[in-house]
Amino acid sequence: MSGSSFGHLFRVINFGESHGPAIGCVIDGCPPGLPLSVDDLQPDLDRRKPGTSRHVTQRRESDRAEILSGVFRGETTGTPIALLIRNEDQRSSDYDDLVDTFRPGHADYTYWRKYGRRDPRGGGRSSARLTAPMVAAGAVARKWLGLHYGTRIRGCMQQLGPIEIPFARWEDAEDNAFFAPNAAVVPQLEAHMDELRRSGDSCGARIRVSASGVPVGLGSPLYDKLDAEIAYAMMGINAVKGVEIGAGFAAVTQLGSEHGDELLPTGFASNHAGGVLGGISTGQDLEVSIAIKPTSSIRLPRRSINARNEAVTIATHGRHDPCVGIRATPIAEAMLALVLIDHALLHRAQNGDVRLGVAPIPAQA
Amino acid sequence: MSGSSFGHLFRVINFGESHGPAIGCVIDGCPPGLPLSVDDLQPDLDRRKPGTSRHVTQRRESDRAEILSGVFRGETTGTPIALLIRNEDQRSSDYDDLVDTFRPGHADYTYWRKYGRRDPRGGGRSSARLTAPMVAAGAVARKWLGLHYGTRIRGCMQQLGPIEIPFARWEDAEDNAFFAPNAAVVPQLEAHMDELRRSGDSCGARIRVSASGVPVGLGSPLYDKLDAEIAYAMMGINAVKGVEIGAGFAAVTQLGSEHGDELLPTGFASNHAGGVLGGISTGQDLEVSIAIKPTSSIRLPRRSINARNEAVTIATHGRHDPCVGIRATPIAEAMLALVLIDHALLHRAQNGDVRLGVAPIPAQA
Amino acid sequence: MSGSSFGHLFRVINFGESHGPAIGCVIDGCPPGLPLSVDDLQPDLDRRKPGTSRHVTQRRESDRAEILSGVFRGETTGTPIALLIRNEDQRSSDYDDLVDTFRPGHADYTYWRKYGRRDPRGGGRSSARLTAPMVAAGAVARKWLGLHYGTRIRGCMQQLGPIEIPFARWEDAEDNAFFAPNAAVVPQLEAHMDELRRSGDSCGARIRVSASGVPVGLGSPLYDKLDAEIAYAMMGINAVKGVEIGAGFAAVTQLGSEHGDELLPTGFASNHAGGVLGGISTGQDLEVSIAIKPTSSIRLPRRSINARNEAVTIATHGRHDPCVGIRATPIAEAMLALVLIDHALLHRAQNGDVRLGVAPIPAQA
Amino acid sequence: MSGSSFGHLFRVINFGESHGPAIGCVIDGCPPGLPLSVDDLQPDLDRRKPGTSRHVTQRRESDRAEILSGVFRGETTGTPIALLIRNEDQRSSDYDDLVDTFRPGHADYTYWRKYGRRDPRGGGRSSARLTAPMVAAGAVARKWLGLHYGTRIRGCMQQLGPIEIPFARWEDAEDNAFFAPNAAVVPQLEAHMDELRRSGDSCGARIRVSASGVPVGLGSPLYDKLDAEIAYAMMGINAVKGVEIGAGFAAVTQLGSEHGDELLPTGFASNHAGGVLGGISTGQDLEVSIAIKPTSSIRLPRRSINARNEAVTIATHGRHDPCVGIRATPIAEAMLALVLIDHALLHRAQNGDVRLGVAPIPAQA
Repeated sequence: MSGSSFGHLFRVINFGESHGPAIGCVIDGCPPGLPLSVDDLQPDLDRRKPGTSRHVTQRRESDRAEILSGVFRGETTGTPIALLIRNEDQRSSDYDDLVDTFRPGHADYTYWRKYGRRDPRGGGRSSARLTAPMVAAGAVARKWLGLHYGTRIRGCMQQLGPIEIPFARWEDAEDNAFFAPNAAVVPQLEAHMDELRRSGDSCGARIRVSASGVPVGLGSPLYDKLDAEIAYAMMGINAVKGVEIGAGFAAVTQLGSEHGDELLPTGFASNHAGGVLGGISTGQDLEVSIAIKPTSSIRLPRRSINARNEAVTIATHGRHDPCVGIRATPIAEAMLALVLIDHALLHRAQNGDVRLGVAPIPAQA
Repeated sequence: MSGSSFGHLFRVINFGESHGPAIGCVIDGCPPGLPLSVDDLQPDLDRRKPGTSRHVTQRRESDRAEILSGVFRGETTGTPIALLIRNEDQRSSDYDDLVDTFRPGHADYTYWRKYGRRDPRGGGRSSARLTAPMVAAGAVARKWLGLHYGTRIRGCMQQLGPIEIPFARWEDAEDNAFFAPNAAVVPQLEAHMDELRRSGDSCGARIRVSASGVPVGLGSPLYDKLDAEIAYAMMGINAVKGVEIGAGFAAVTQLGSEHGDELLPTGFASNHAGGVLGGISTGQDLEVSIAIKPTSSIRLPRRSINARNEAVTIATHGRHDPCVGIRATPIAEAMLALVLIDHALLHRAQNGDVRLGVAPIPAQA
Repeated sequence: MSGSSFGHLFRVINFGESHGPAIGCVIDGCPPGLPLSVDDLQPDLDRRKPGTSRHVTQRRESDRAEILSGVFRGETTGTPIALLIRNEDQRSSDYDDLVDTFRPGHADYTYWRKYGRRDPRGGGRSSARLTAPMVAAGAVARKWLGLHYGTRIRGCMQQLGPIEIPFARWEDAEDNAFFAPNAAVVPQLEAHMDELRRSGDSCGARIRVSASGVPVGLGSPLYDKLDAEIAYAMMGINAVKGVEIGAGFAAVTQLGSEHGDELLPTGFASNHAGGVLGGISTGQDLEVSIAIKPTSSIRLPRRSINARNEAVTIATHGRHDPCVGIRATPIAEAMLALVLIDHALLHRAQNGDVRLGVAPIPAQA
Repeated sequence: MSGSSFGHLFRVINFGESHGPAIGCVIDGCPPGLPLSVDDLQPDLDRRKPGTSRHVTQRRESDRAEILSGVFRGETTGTPIALLIRNEDQRSSDYDDLVDTFRPGHADYTYWRKYGRRDPRGGGRSSARLTAPMVAAGAVARKWLGLHYGTRIRGCMQQLGPIEIPFARWEDAEDNAFFAPNAAVVPQLEAHMDELRRSGDSCGARIRVSASGVPVGLGSPLYDKLDAEIAYAMMGINAVKGVEIGAGFAAVTQLGSEHGDELLPTGFASNHAGGVLGGISTGQDLEVSIAIKPTSSIRLPRRSINARNEAVTIATHGRHDPCVGIRATPIAEAMLALVLIDHALLHRAQNGDVRLGVAPIPAQA
């Protein structure tokens, strides 16, 4: 396996660079008969795309996907679905002076060392732009999951830099540029971002993703546990530095009598596990939280080196997100959808014959 | 791919159950010519094995591995290495009353739902016992990494329940049952565990794993980022609920000017990244931290259900770790070793011809 | 992927060497609930094992498999099934003089060049002995296929050296050492083998494998076609040099009007396709034919070199099959079973929801 | 793995349908630093493309590939290379009456049964048109192999229907529409094809592919033998029904003393093995032969059924190859190149450290 594919049975290969002619992906293994058109992809692509508020990069991309294959008369055929998104707003000249220097906190240095060369235009392959095809593929996955299991995947921001955002309601998350699930906090977030842009600095964020209607039994005991695959998916998103399932790091200070979710005939009494036990889904809501580091491209001057190992000073101008976490919510949702559809297919491959006489119904706490 | 294998090129398949005749693994893809005997595996197996202090389960297992294949005249041949560990101290009768009930916080319920049946003896496949083959495979990996790159992988406990353990020195970590890198704290940890055993409860822990001498350039941009693979490896360890790379969740409140590690001609000025940028190793120390939940098997009575969805009360007796985190350090080290050797092989497959004229030497902060 | 595994979802990793302590395999991904014991494996292992007639190697091996994991109370649990076969009749001293020389037609030279070393005892990993775990894994697969789909896999010898064996009946194939489907030809085959042993030479063979009761729809259009996977499976058997599906090489001289199997409402009118169209099973019998080269280990002296590139003369003594094709039938059957179960699981993963209103019933010609 | 990808480390995913907007592939894992432009792809694409002589389909396609990613300033970057070929000459109306009927010998029936639907336009995904991206990917592979090892891959036709083509010289193969390595036979081949077109029937062919300059040591003992992977690659080409390596089916009647290639200090004395022993390349020429069935789309009326299982008569008009074998040579070459680059990368991943003091030089017979 060569690194650019995600998933075992619902498999997505991602291609492209920030300033190349196009980005996209090929989805292999999608079940046939799913009604699908570009209209199914666009809402999530629009939630992710740049330029939608003053708080994100001002690059102008319509991010419209073209379906090149795998759909016939409005339904998936079971053969590979190729999705193509043309890049429209490349300003490669912005990056001419970066060919030879390494921006702190960026992949510039590591790509150069790994491959002996790199495409410096907009970060090339390391650009957050490559999350657009992930979102498009995720939209296919969540449509299938919704139709088959009633699975619903939602995300929101939990923290922006120092500002914790108390959860109010999911609906609020779709009504502001931050995916903040609490309308009352939005003015504070906006003020913080305005200040940050003035200062030329950047900040981190914490994002929550949640899935309800998850079938029981997804995941393999060792090693492809559902939570392990989710951790892989989330840590693979640009700028993510930490992943928690359920109680996460808070589990360190919990007692066993507190953490272990009791089962009642009416369902689980709590959900510290975050919907996974022994690597397998319990049917409770999957609860995931991720840490996103502050953007590395900032206007403040920073010390670095060039390819000749000479000291240089770098201040990044051009168009950048002062907090990449702002646009991370739909991406994390998409990645969770990709893990879930993949494991739903894996599960029915092996365990399609399992019939249980009595099925306890787990309830949400 | 069927879930029980780890790695792409240095591939380990794990098999066995806690109370079956044997556990073990097969390593496929090990480079030939590595001097190897069971003596290379035993030290790490001994660090992990049960019964070595009063603070862990008192199950008595010698955990001696037999090498069944892949080694000829003391060197690996390049063909699969099968490692076998016979189970010696099964007390399956301890579990007879559990066939039909689901312990809170355990995989009992999810296995039963996934497979329509489960092996209840000692947790069956979900037992922490299955980490022994991981440790054995990891010992092979770390020997190769050490010989080829001088890579050194070390781990220690950062926190036991509520007790944070200030890092003093690596050497201390090998001198106590907790892998605590600070001898002065050990009495406090022992007192905490003694109290916990008396109360019949359990606690969580936080473990740090670190690798030095990591080659630059390991990892793929998308999706098989080195940090994504590490997250997958760590979250796949029993009881892990959170994974951080470098600054981890602390990155949420950092500013970009603080988080992004500056490069100097003498090396990186800091290591907030934890040794990975853009999914590729920087050559700095890899820094990983994981959260381990409190053991689910506790003496305190808990509410649960049986397979007929009737309410039951469960108090787990028998031999259990009151903090599985205590034995987690060598496991986490092993998993990191497996990720690194796998990516070292992947890297030289694709990039074996890359020759750079000038190589900046990254320094540890 | 590291080369020693077979299959995608029903995945078998094979380990061991001819004269090491043990050989075996781990099956990952077997569906749960399959009744399984060693008694299910032994009949096929016995059909393959050495020493059962004077026409095959006289090595004495009971080839009894031990099930180490994955089975609980007589049923598969869905977790990895490890199968172990201890080697009993190693005579490694037979091979001491071979460490340094390369037998013509053997893997001696290529292993040495690939790995820089090799295990010379009995051919090490390249020995046909390693087909025993394949047969054991295949027995699990065919039991599942039989129970689920009524699939029946049978094989027979079509040709032994120059002697073509007209097909009479399947039953005959199980009544002689050659798996010849025609009892009348057996004396001629025995005479040929007796003569061959006297001369110290060896001969090739042609084997047919057939599966009936194959579900329609197995295989992916590109590249994991069912026939492509079968070709991979068959060519992976020791000594195989050619693979045909259906008409095979005879298709070269057929006209399109002759080759293309017509469909009638009562089923296909012929089966030149051999049960596969466009890489997907038609439901007709799968028909496969393979060519097996003559054994390379012969008593007649042959020219070769040693590791110092000096000319040597080699005559192989010890215990060898004068025609490895004689024992190949159960192996080829096993490999076909492994392909079929794997694709049966893959198929229901992706297409488990496909429901067709009208299903034409293909008939065997 | 979801069926539409080829290769382990040099991994190609193929997408598209005959009459969709575009076909193409994504190559993941290509080493960086390979000089690459569309000019490297076009010669092989042109050798395969339709409409170049009266003996093949008259569909008009320029088959020009666009490189969407993975190349920067004329060199591969090590990231995925997406290749796009727009379909230009779709005449989907030709196929309107086929939506509901199944052409004998075609994948129509099996696709419909597998997926519950199919794209009937030009065979959809089962069209030989999908071999164009294979050829494009193969061109990348053979360029790299040529630069690194001097590997040269050539193919030719060995037989057209009943006409055997004695090998004269490789150069001839590039000077006629049939890839016949013997100019003298070409008039006979042309006459045969003209007659076939008049009769409305089709014929099969036999193709040889050969690789020289193959590194020693490629392939894994079990199961990913080099010859097994080649068999998979070749049988995966549309219409292939048989694969031989080296002596192939002729090995059945060879004696061991004849088949086993002797080694001399100056090299191998013969090449019955076809360049592979024990699944690993010997360094001799790889010799592969494949059988191609006659085209299923013929003008002669044939019996079939429709989706309601009613008897119908089908005569296929429109544009079709009367012998798909004519264009198969560049496709088979491409697939061999893909296997070789993949195993070259796999080999150096595992065995990059193997250093042999004395290397016998195998010679071609």
